[in-house]
Amino acid sequence: MRSDNPAEIALSNDLEVRDERGLIAQDYFDQVEAAIEQRDRELLLELTQDLHEADMGDLIEAFGPRDRQDFLDLLAEDFDFSALTELDDSLRLKIVDALPNEVVAEGVKELDSDDAVIILEDMEEEDREEILAQLPVMDRIQLKRSLDFPEDSAGRRMQTEFIAVAPFWTVGQTIDYMRETIDLPDEFNQIFVIDPAHRLLGSVSLDTLLRSRRPTKITEIMDETRHYVTAEEDQEEVSRLFERYDLLSAAVVDESERLVGVLTIDDIVDVIHEEAEEDIKRLGGVGDEEITDTVIETVRSRFTWLAVNLLTAILASWVIALFDSTIEQMVALAVLMPIVASMGGNAATQTMTVAVRALATQEIDSFNMMRVVSREVLVALLNGAAFAVLVGAIAGFWFENFDLGLVIGAALVINLFFAGLSGILIPLGLEKLGADPAVASSVFITTVTDVVGFFAFLGLAAWWFGLV
Amino acid sequence: MRSDNPAEIALSNDLEVRDERGLIAQDYFDQVEAAIEQRDRELLLELTQDLHEADMGDLIEAFGPRDRQDFLDLLAEDFDFSALTELDDSLRLKIVDALPNEVVAEGVKELDSDDAVIILEDMEEEDREEILAQLPVMDRIQLKRSLDFPEDSAGRRMQTEFIAVAPFWTVGQTIDYMRETIDLPDEFNQIFVIDPAHRLLGSVSLDTLLRSRRPTKITEIMDETRHYVTAEEDQEEVSRLFERYDLLSAAVVDESERLVGVLTIDDIVDVIHEEAEEDIKRLGGVGDEEITDTVIETVRSRFTWLAVNLLTAILASWVIALFDSTIEQMVALAVLMPIVASMGGNAATQTMTVAVRALATQEIDSFNMMRVVSREVLVALLNGAAFAVLVGAIAGFWFENFDLGLVIGAALVINLFFAGLSGILIPLGLEKLGADPAVASSVFITTVTDVVGFFAFLGLAAWWFGLV
Repeated sequence: MRSDNPAEIALSNDLEVRDERGLIAQDYFDQVEAAIEQRDRELLLELTQDLHEADMGDLIEAFGPRDRQDFLDLLAEDFDFSALTELDDSLRLKIVDALPNEVVAEGVKELDSDDAVIILEDMEEEDREEILAQLPVMDRIQLKRSLDFPEDSAGRRMQTEFIAVAPFWTVGQTIDYMRETIDLPDEFNQIFVIDPAHRLLGSVSLDTLLRSRRPTKITEIMDETRHYVTAEEDQEEVSRLFERYDLLSAAVVDESERLVGVLTIDDIVDVIHEEAEEDIKRLGGVGDEEITDTVIETVRSRFTWLAVNLLTAILASWVIALFDSTIEQMVALAVLMPIVASMGGNAATQTMTVAVRALATQEIDSFNMMRVVSREVLVALLNGAAFAVLVGAIAGFWFENFDLGLVIGAALVINLFFAGLSGILIPLGLEKLGADPAVASSVFITTVTDVVGFFAFLGLAAWWFGLV
Repeated sequence: MRSDNPAEIALSNDLEVRDERGLIAQDYFDQVEAAIEQRDRELLLELTQDLHEADMGDLIEAFGPRDRQDFLDLLAEDFDFSALTELDDSLRLKIVDALPNEVVAEGVKELDSDDAVIILEDMEEEDREEILAQLPVMDRIQLKRSLDFPEDSAGRRMQTEFIAVAPFWTVGQTIDYMRETIDLPDEFNQIFVIDPAHRLLGSVSLDTLLRSRRPTKITEIMDETRHYVTAEEDQEEVSRLFERYDLLSAAVVDESERLVGVLTIDDIVDVIHEEAEEDIKRLGGVGDEEITDTVIETVRSRFTWLAVNLLTAILASWVIALFDSTIEQMVALAVLMPIVASMGGNAATQTMTVAVRALATQEIDSFNMMRVVSREVLVALLNGAAFAVLVGAIAGFWFENFDLGLVIGAALVINLFFAGLSGILIPLGLEKLGADPAVASSVFITTVTDVVGFFAFLGLAAWWFGLV
């Protein structure tokens, strides 16, 4: 406790790894870079040997591609593979792909099962098999079982190292067992109770164990497990369970209710982060892009979304083209029409954002669905009315045409009504169909508000002014 | 373990509280509602007494306003206030405001300090003082101290109940102390070591304690605390620390380095959720809105954002108005111009989404900033070129005018370039100015892409075709 700042970690040579904002410190980074440039392996080891895997991960992300490669080459067999689990998926894959399979096998050997799975799961089938073949047989069997579970399932994320005891043991026996066993998991906060067929009976938290007297039977202090997870379950569902019941860890069982692993909250924190990030990125139309992706990868991943957007923009243009002679006779319509479309787009985005989040956090259910939908429609109509007056007045004065103000006001009410309705119904519909409401909502919604906006405004104008 | 589904919890009367999707089960809900309608307090108690606070919270959120009030009136003093901590902020405030202060004081008495703070912090000053005055003096002092810390600080979120021992104690003494003390915190996974002045020296995790022999001195197994938190620190920084180092709990110290509380991962999980939710909502222009807000609250909160959007839309209209005679002579321009603006808006949103997330997770730092900016510009130019060809060809064929295709292609490259540049520079600039990049980015960015898009397309067309 020599420093006022919790994020600062002192190394033996008194160099701070992170600055006051929690980022990798410039001074430290410069020294590491100098060591790389001078190919000074000894200095590099000294600088990095005490790093937490998270600090090591951030350091690797801070390097440019060349420094990164040199850094790994210099550390060679002293590089701790656990740092790889802290990296973006795409960067991790890039690094692992560049290493010889034997080196990866050696590195993976040292890891907990859940960390090893993270490194292996994204690799090419062939490389993965080659690496698995070089692992001790027990490790290989455990890892293969984890990898056989679906992507993003509890079975993939679980740790297969845990402590399980028999129900007839006493507290004393259990404590002695833990004192004598060397090969325990690194950290744990509960022990599990299983029957002879390895079926989960319950669990005992460490604080309960500590507070109980030695002769107490485990069954007396055991909690019957209310919240456990099946290995096939999706990580998003699992994270909801953790959040809902404030769990620190949960048992994972297979289809025969046998205990096969344990999920801990630190893995779940990553999942919560991933899922929220996924929603934000999908709403923004950028897929699984990471900041470390190359230019070409990024161009490709964004192209699809822009292409979809182009189709909807062309549809909107086609609607405008229906009224080309109207516009020719009254060019003020061309000037004002983006206002109608843009207000609708914004109102729909607001509704959609709330709807997508509420669906992701299960805040919308059959009990409140009708209430939520009618609330959105009412909000849309009220804001529609307010902006109809505002925009109508502005347009009326601008073009000294009171009728034009009336027409744009009416078009705004219509478009904001459809914006509210589609902003809530499209996400609900996509969820019902089993699609992710975040991924496709914004493109559908912009289409609706553009098409309705242009059609309502230009159509009303053509009819009102008789310009067909 | 009678059920295959981990989310299903059996009550004594064999009624499932949640369905297979993890939502409150319709059958259960109907029974509760019937009990409310029949004002059958006994049945209601039986139905709800075993509920976890999270289940109780979701049940309350599922009710309509009238049922909610009746439910609380019927349960009266048997209502467990911890369920309130599971509700949306605005709904919780509404419920607490409707209850007499004496009832709230009674309810708060039973809670852990961190839960009590959540209920008290949003109340009117006057009500809060009245409630605090009715609490036991020790509780009052602790709560007041927590409430004196800034909003969203570690001091607000921390639990003031923890176990701290002296460094010269042995493992045996510590275990005996825990066995004999009744008033321990409900759950804990580490104990702290303090000096006589209450300054934090270190911590011992429960698994280490369990694995050590009774005569072992605490100092021998104590970890010097590397990661701790000051009470004034913002919860977002704290959550980064938890995530980075996979912490389960962290000590909170005051300005004199005295141990004042403990933060646990379950509170941090809520923070992570809140912060991600805040980003999503700000990007979508909906502020702190909750699904339980009333229509009027929602209209008001969304109005501001729509009004800002109106200003930018009027600016774009003004740009179009500069070229009204051009459009009059060539109405195809009015038909095509939304395509240029919309593609730019989308490309900018993509860049901005990645930038805002990367800033929130500190993935952008001084080491990679230049690399990130030039990557975005390059991506924008490449996609700009691709869509210039595509859109140019479409426009050329549609209006049988090859020159129009050239003009729209050039306008697209220009707009996508500015889209990429503003998509990355505006968030970076806002962050530099100390503003939240998420809150204002999208409005600035749409303004840029609309204005540049219309100006580039119409301006180029006016010049190329000589239509001024």
